[in-house]
Amino acid sequence: MASLRIEPDNLEIVVSENTPLVKALWQAGISVEAPCGGFGICGKCKVRFLSGCIPQPTAEERKHLTDFDLREGWRLTCQHRVEGDATIFVPNESKPSIAQILTTAVERETDLQPAVKRFTVFVPPASTRDERSDVQRLLDAVQRQHGLSLSSSSLHLSVLRSLPAALRQSQQITLTVHSVEPGQFSVLSVEPENEKVRPVLGIAFDIGTTTLVGYLIDLETGKELACAVRLNPQIQFGDDVVSRLHYALQQPNGLRQLQQAVVRGMNEIIAECCQVANVSPTDVYELVCVGNTAMLHLLLGVNPEPIALAPYVPVFNEPVTVEAWKLGLRVHPNGLLTTLPCVAGYIGADTVAVVLSHLHEPEGEPIVALDIGTNGEIVVRRQGQYWCASAAAGPAFEGGRIYQGMRAERGAISQVSVERVNGKVWLKAQTLGGILPKGICGSGLIDAVAALIELGVIDETGRMNNDLPEWKERFLSINGQKAFQLVAPHLSERSEGIVLSQRDVREMQLAKGSIRAVAEVLLQVAGLQWDEVSRVIISGAFGFFVNLRSAQRIGLLPPLPLERFLPVGNAAGAGAKLALRSIVERKRATELARKMTHVPMTGNPAYEEALMEFIAFPTI
Amino acid sequence: MASLRIEPDNLEIVVSENTPLVKALWQAGISVEAPCGGFGICGKCKVRFLSGCIPQPTAEERKHLTDFDLREGWRLTCQHRVEGDATIFVPNESKPSIAQILTTAVERETDLQPAVKRFTVFVPPASTRDERSDVQRLLDAVQRQHGLSLSSSSLHLSVLRSLPAALRQSQQITLTVHSVEPGQFSVLSVEPENEKVRPVLGIAFDIGTTTLVGYLIDLETGKELACAVRLNPQIQFGDDVVSRLHYALQQPNGLRQLQQAVVRGMNEIIAECCQVANVSPTDVYELVCVGNTAMLHLLLGVNPEPIALAPYVPVFNEPVTVEAWKLGLRVHPNGLLTTLPCVAGYIGADTVAVVLSHLHEPEGEPIVALDIGTNGEIVVRRQGQYWCASAAAGPAFEGGRIYQGMRAERGAISQVSVERVNGKVWLKAQTLGGILPKGICGSGLIDAVAALIELGVIDETGRMNNDLPEWKERFLSINGQKAFQLVAPHLSERSEGIVLSQRDVREMQLAKGSIRAVAEVLLQVAGLQWDEVSRVIISGAFGFFVNLRSAQRIGLLPPLPLERFLPVGNAAGAGAKLALRSIVERKRATELARKMTHVPMTGNPAYEEALMEFIAFPTI
Repeated sequence: MASLRIEPDNLEIVVSENTPLVKALWQAGISVEAPCGGFGICGKCKVRFLSGCIPQPTAEERKHLTDFDLREGWRLTCQHRVEGDATIFVPNESKPSIAQILTTAVERETDLQPAVKRFTVFVPPASTRDERSDVQRLLDAVQRQHGLSLSSSSLHLSVLRSLPAALRQSQQITLTVHSVEPGQFSVLSVEPENEKVRPVLGIAFDIGTTTLVGYLIDLETGKELACAVRLNPQIQFGDDVVSRLHYALQQPNGLRQLQQAVVRGMNEIIAECCQVANVSPTDVYELVCVGNTAMLHLLLGVNPEPIALAPYVPVFNEPVTVEAWKLGLRVHPNGLLTTLPCVAGYIGADTVAVVLSHLHEPEGEPIVALDIGTNGEIVVRRQGQYWCASAAAGPAFEGGRIYQGMRAERGAISQVSVERVNGKVWLKAQTLGGILPKGICGSGLIDAVAALIELGVIDETGRMNNDLPEWKERFLSINGQKAFQLVAPHLSERSEGIVLSQRDVREMQLAKGSIRAVAEVLLQVAGLQWDEVSRVIISGAFGFFVNLRSAQRIGLLPPLPLERFLPVGNAAGAGAKLALRSIVERKRATELARKMTHVPMTGNPAYEEALMEFIAFPTI
Repeated sequence: MASLRIEPDNLEIVVSENTPLVKALWQAGISVEAPCGGFGICGKCKVRFLSGCIPQPTAEERKHLTDFDLREGWRLTCQHRVEGDATIFVPNESKPSIAQILTTAVERETDLQPAVKRFTVFVPPASTRDERSDVQRLLDAVQRQHGLSLSSSSLHLSVLRSLPAALRQSQQITLTVHSVEPGQFSVLSVEPENEKVRPVLGIAFDIGTTTLVGYLIDLETGKELACAVRLNPQIQFGDDVVSRLHYALQQPNGLRQLQQAVVRGMNEIIAECCQVANVSPTDVYELVCVGNTAMLHLLLGVNPEPIALAPYVPVFNEPVTVEAWKLGLRVHPNGLLTTLPCVAGYIGADTVAVVLSHLHEPEGEPIVALDIGTNGEIVVRRQGQYWCASAAAGPAFEGGRIYQGMRAERGAISQVSVERVNGKVWLKAQTLGGILPKGICGSGLIDAVAALIELGVIDETGRMNNDLPEWKERFLSINGQKAFQLVAPHLSERSEGIVLSQRDVREMQLAKGSIRAVAEVLLQVAGLQWDEVSRVIISGAFGFFVNLRSAQRIGLLPPLPLERFLPVGNAAGAGAKLALRSIVERKRATELARKMTHVPMTGNPAYEEALMEFIAFPTI
């Protein structure tokens, strides 16, 4: 056993020697970021050994840390196991923090018709003239008073166990029943009516790769009572889908760790929502979850390997209903979790939920929906048909794989614009929270690239031009790369200032090029031109925080009048709420998922051609 | 904490002070018999404190133990809690032992149509041209190859989790499916076909008050592979239904203890059956259980209080299906337990199972079925109608409440006959196992009473006559009671010899009188005379081990020609097997239960009149 002291949190833990360091810290309650999945690629999990057993640096570490850093005790957490007693300093920037998570959404109305309903029945007492069992008197009363034919097999064991006491406390009995198919019921709970009136609750979950959002809904009124968000705790095992899949497949127990991580986050959300609304988690009877296909596999603890390997076919696309406690979720003991359907390995229930929210009428006008999160999914609707595909955009729009990239947190540059005053041209950068900048987030990146294109610092091919006399001195060389200083060192938290490197521009080009190329291919398949598209739905945080004009300037969005773009917020969450509020909407989701044709992009020549075209920036 | 040393097993355990002694011994794996339910009534739970903290005797103990016994350290386990360190001797007679349990049964044939079926499907691999999910390809294959419409919600979480590996190991997939209602399925397991061929198993359980019997059935062939029996471990909490109900209601955690006890016994049976048949308990997918209503409540952990209190209406009569593991049963993790229906608080699924076995055709000839176990249940069938009732016979036929009563174990007198040789008359007593007698069991009692009636030692009123010159010296006085010596002291294991007391005869009269009276009332209600009854079915061990002529002599059975009595063995177990082998039989059981009219005897004047009449012995 080895004893670790962890600073600045002043924690002390004892772990077995040879425990992976990231796991040891995790046991102490310290999450360390490892966006690359712990393969020593991103270099973001830095910690400093202050004393004790300091492990020898690895080859991977030498790529990310200077000799000086290494001598000072800096190491990458992912590279080491516990070798003996040590004191370790974990800097704040190595810990994930809550980002600016979008929870608001443009919602459409639906009639309240939830799967979980509560009703009261009068059950006469047993007597020598009425020798029917407790169960039979209950079932007969439900039949007579509500016209529902329940069978004894619809009663959970716990219901059977609580029935005799309930019936002897009151003749008015409150039943909570789950039913999705007509004539098929399961009774989740039974209580004497004279107990305190308790609500019937459900939570709609948007299980994002980066963020988890939960909406607590009163299923008797349809009202939203609370909303809570968390970073997906799976982030410590990798910040995009691919690195999580990698972790699940490569690490012993990896799938289980990922499953438990997301459930931990969901339980925090459940607890927070219930605290805010002053209700009990045991009154939550149903969870409806959307998320991309891989996230739903990980949530259920189903091996996602088939998604990761050709032909990339998931284990399930179909809606699945399981007992919530089996996943470790802390709600009512008979509570159920239902997923919305997915379409394919990379078109998940989140995309179906966007369609359910905003493209639910198949015969409506031609419309395009863009859902740009950690991945990008695009759907085109035309004349009752839907085509969809995902773009391997990578996490650039969330600050991933960008030299100074960060999530939309305090200190991130989120807006950049070209200002011209009295003939002088300068770049204006604004940070979230108005503090000194620490890095740059997705919306800032798009603005920055658009601005540098406007200034001629970046040409259509994406090459940075460091010869322009007025901008020349803004250029640095970082790791042998050209880099443009957006903010000077003395006005930033970094000694090199806030910079955008040539490689960052290339990452951006790839990301926006692939999204745009996918959209172009889908339009072709649907036989549409952009000017025939009446509306472009933009869901997710992207649509709320990104300057649409900049996004057009870099060619991510097509050159349509701005009023045709409709940012709708968290449309995936809105879709989950619809399905939670109404089983009609839930069935509609399944029908919509069936209508959605997945157009594969891998090896698709039309896609490769479009990608070549849209990697470049548009000339104006 | 106190340390207890337990002899002669040479065990040492540490328990909290104030732990009930019976519980402390139980934790050490030592069951102590307490047929009266631990109320100090039966005096059967004797142990001897050899050293250490010896508790003060209670008033109850003084009734059962002499001053000498008490000075020697003998106490009743049920009366004390652990007071400190002690060494305790637990004699064998205080421990329950395996009785002669009847497992054989006259069975009728039925077509094999089990709820759990296994079949193989060919599931094509995923490909870029076939992007259906694993689940969808499986469901489509089942639809095409077997014509069954499964839905994704019919898949258990564990099935979803094992599906991807199975499909990638083999394209031939073996599904194990549970279905009782047409169109409603649940998939219990999925395996690649190239794994070792494993059986699909079920166990039919007869949950008796005294004994548990399990029959392991191969659900693909219908063959019985093994059978195992145990005393119901609930015996330590009382040996009849009433004392168990009392224990469940009075003791904190009593219901839970009873529930766990029966499950412990069932798990032993499952393990033994599987060992004998060389199969794995994880291949057991379904358990079908019969038992009296109270036993089924205790098995499920459902509060049986309503059965114990007027109007004696149970929580459930209806068939119930629950996940077996929820009860603590060690079978396949998705295995199910189903109960057959009951009719009323004291007419259980065991009686329905007897009807299913032998009275299943409503329009057959008039027939009477007697099921005499710890309780007595009687069913009369006439022209499509069934009437049934239970007799509060008490455990006399199983040796309970009889001075030297014991179960049908080695050393029990099981047969007594009057022998006449050369003008000499003597009584012949035979013991089970042919060893020196220790006591007397039910069949021996009936024989003994019949013999003493024949000899004039007992008159029609039941009074023992100690004035007959030839038998006079056989009489003793025990606790102020007349008692007849069946076996002399030097030929028995007891210093007083084997005796039958006046009170024993009274117990016998009450027991046989109440059973016969119930039968008479049911015949009246059905409008039948005994001579119209074509057959009297006698189920249970009783019919196998009891001399029918003796039973007629004491008036327990009516005076019909002996060939009309048909001992059928464990008909309740046979009914459970029918329901396990065929869902058609299972439905039939529910229909039969609905047809069975329960005729209450409590406060029924016809019953009281018949009881008065049949408490006496018939004059011949």
